[in-house]
Amino acid sequence: MFKKIVIFGVGLIGGSFALALKKAAAATHTVGVGRTAAPLARAIELGIIDSASSSDSDALATCLRDADLVLIAAPVAQTEAILEAIAPHLQAGTIVTDAGSTKTDVVAAARRALGAKIAQFVPGHPIAGRELNGPEAALSDLYLGKKVVLTPLPENAMDDVARVAAAWQQCGAIIHRLTPEQHDRVFASVSHLPHLLAYALVDDIARKPHADLLFQYAASGFRDFTRIAGSSPEMWRDIALANQTALLSELDAYMLQLTHLRSALAGGDGGALEAIFANAQQARQRWEISIEAAEKHHQEGGD
Amino acid sequence: MFKKIVIFGVGLIGGSFALALKKAAAATHTVGVGRTAAPLARAIELGIIDSASSSDSDALATCLRDADLVLIAAPVAQTEAILEAIAPHLQAGTIVTDAGSTKTDVVAAARRALGAKIAQFVPGHPIAGRELNGPEAALSDLYLGKKVVLTPLPENAMDDVARVAAAWQQCGAIIHRLTPEQHDRVFASVSHLPHLLAYALVDDIARKPHADLLFQYAASGFRDFTRIAGSSPEMWRDIALANQTALLSELDAYMLQLTHLRSALAGGDGGALEAIFANAQQARQRWEISIEAAEKHHQEGGD
Repeated sequence: MFKKIVIFGVGLIGGSFALALKKAAAATHTVGVGRTAAPLARAIELGIIDSASSSDSDALATCLRDADLVLIAAPVAQTEAILEAIAPHLQAGTIVTDAGSTKTDVVAAARRALGAKIAQFVPGHPIAGRELNGPEAALSDLYLGKKVVLTPLPENAMDDVARVAAAWQQCGAIIHRLTPEQHDRVFASVSHLPHLLAYALVDDIARKPHADLLFQYAASGFRDFTRIAGSSPEMWRDIALANQTALLSELDAYMLQLTHLRSALAGGDGGALEAIFANAQQARQRWEISIEAAEKHHQEGGD
Repeated sequence: MFKKIVIFGVGLIGGSFALALKKAAAATHTVGVGRTAAPLARAIELGIIDSASSSDSDALATCLRDADLVLIAAPVAQTEAILEAIAPHLQAGTIVTDAGSTKTDVVAAARRALGAKIAQFVPGHPIAGRELNGPEAALSDLYLGKKVVLTPLPENAMDDVARVAAAWQQCGAIIHRLTPEQHDRVFASVSHLPHLLAYALVDDIARKPHADLLFQYAASGFRDFTRIAGSSPEMWRDIALANQTALLSELDAYMLQLTHLRSALAGGDGGALEAIFANAQQARQRWEISIEAAEKHHQEGGD
């Protein structure tokens, strides 16, 4: 049970966290903090938060007093500035966590901003989303059955990590643990690279002189493949830059793979093409079966 | 109205064509032809076809007698052999069309196989599909509101092209016309390349030593992006090889695009990344709006 939770960013991610904890009766008072007043007012109207605070220093000092838990769910580019702003007001009993899509850069920013208070920061990444944003998009069941990856620091107290895990579990999430470096390599591979590739394809087609003709014949396969190219350009620019090292490494491996595929195609080597296609098809089928099994297991009350 | 239609391949594509024409009362008798007996028997049971024929020469001679229309909806690698088999038995009043995903190679095969009878061949490509195959997957409304691209030959009689168009329109499809070369360039760009890229990504991940860890964190974005990597490896091997020239050209343009993107990422050039992402996002939004408008227009009885 949390007496006072402070949430920076009351949109989809922060707002859904607040709604889920309220539904689970796990938070007595929730304060939303933001740079602009309108989303905060809307979040109060929608019953997402109990009160709102501006982000100036005096207001932060007040709202952080006696807070148990702080969640930073603002755009990831703002994380360091928020950590710097809260550092002077952070009491010993307050745990800070975040919801950023990358972790090594957030950890580095937290070390710079929090200094000796770094032990109070437990980094996290909820693997959930929708195509919508803002307080209106928040859902109390957004995290139900979804993964939340925590990437604890050597300095973190076991109890503090457990408290952050407990908050997400109250939202219905399943807790996973990785190191920040593992986390960033994993998501470079299965999330950040696919976003880059989808953006690259649509931009490539859109720049061709006969783009209108091409788009006219794009069908359901194209729609699925490029759905993630509908995501926020600013957010994905920030994620790409934040995870530059791991993403470059994945992109290089992929470009090498395309070079092999190109040789097979240019050489008319049907066997080589089919081997790649068949391995991919089988791996994807195995993945779908295992994902469905995991979801079924969870629905039946497993962990 | 067609008195006798002969369909090679009574699976999803051929079976749905037969069901749609039956529903529209546009065909008096439909004969299915195949290399194996079981799918034909199943297609009769399901009311897809009225009778079945083997593909040996005597049987073909019988079933092609007085046929108005022949649809070749077997795997595209079999098209030339089927055209060779039917050529000696093809009467002057019979029109032949196909449903292959590539067109220049099919036209070349048809010229080789049909010789002087090439005027009777009107190439086509219905842009519709499901992840399922076989007679059980056939649906009478598979083509409703979907595009069918015809790529007529200079030798075709206008009337014959109109007859093939009319058959697809009876299935609810919207007729488009391209040259075979235009068709292949368009589909290399919006369909064949995305398939190649999705297969390449899944194969790339599956071959990594920590593939199991990676797949564990793949979520909805990955699921959509890689859905087409669940397609038949044999079919896409054949399509890739059949459309080799256009596909190599699209793949080269895409690899150049990735090289630009890599430079922007390696140089930390957020502006360049955001420009590519934003152009892609806007182009995709415009595409979705125009697709939805076209679908709405069609539903309201437009053409």
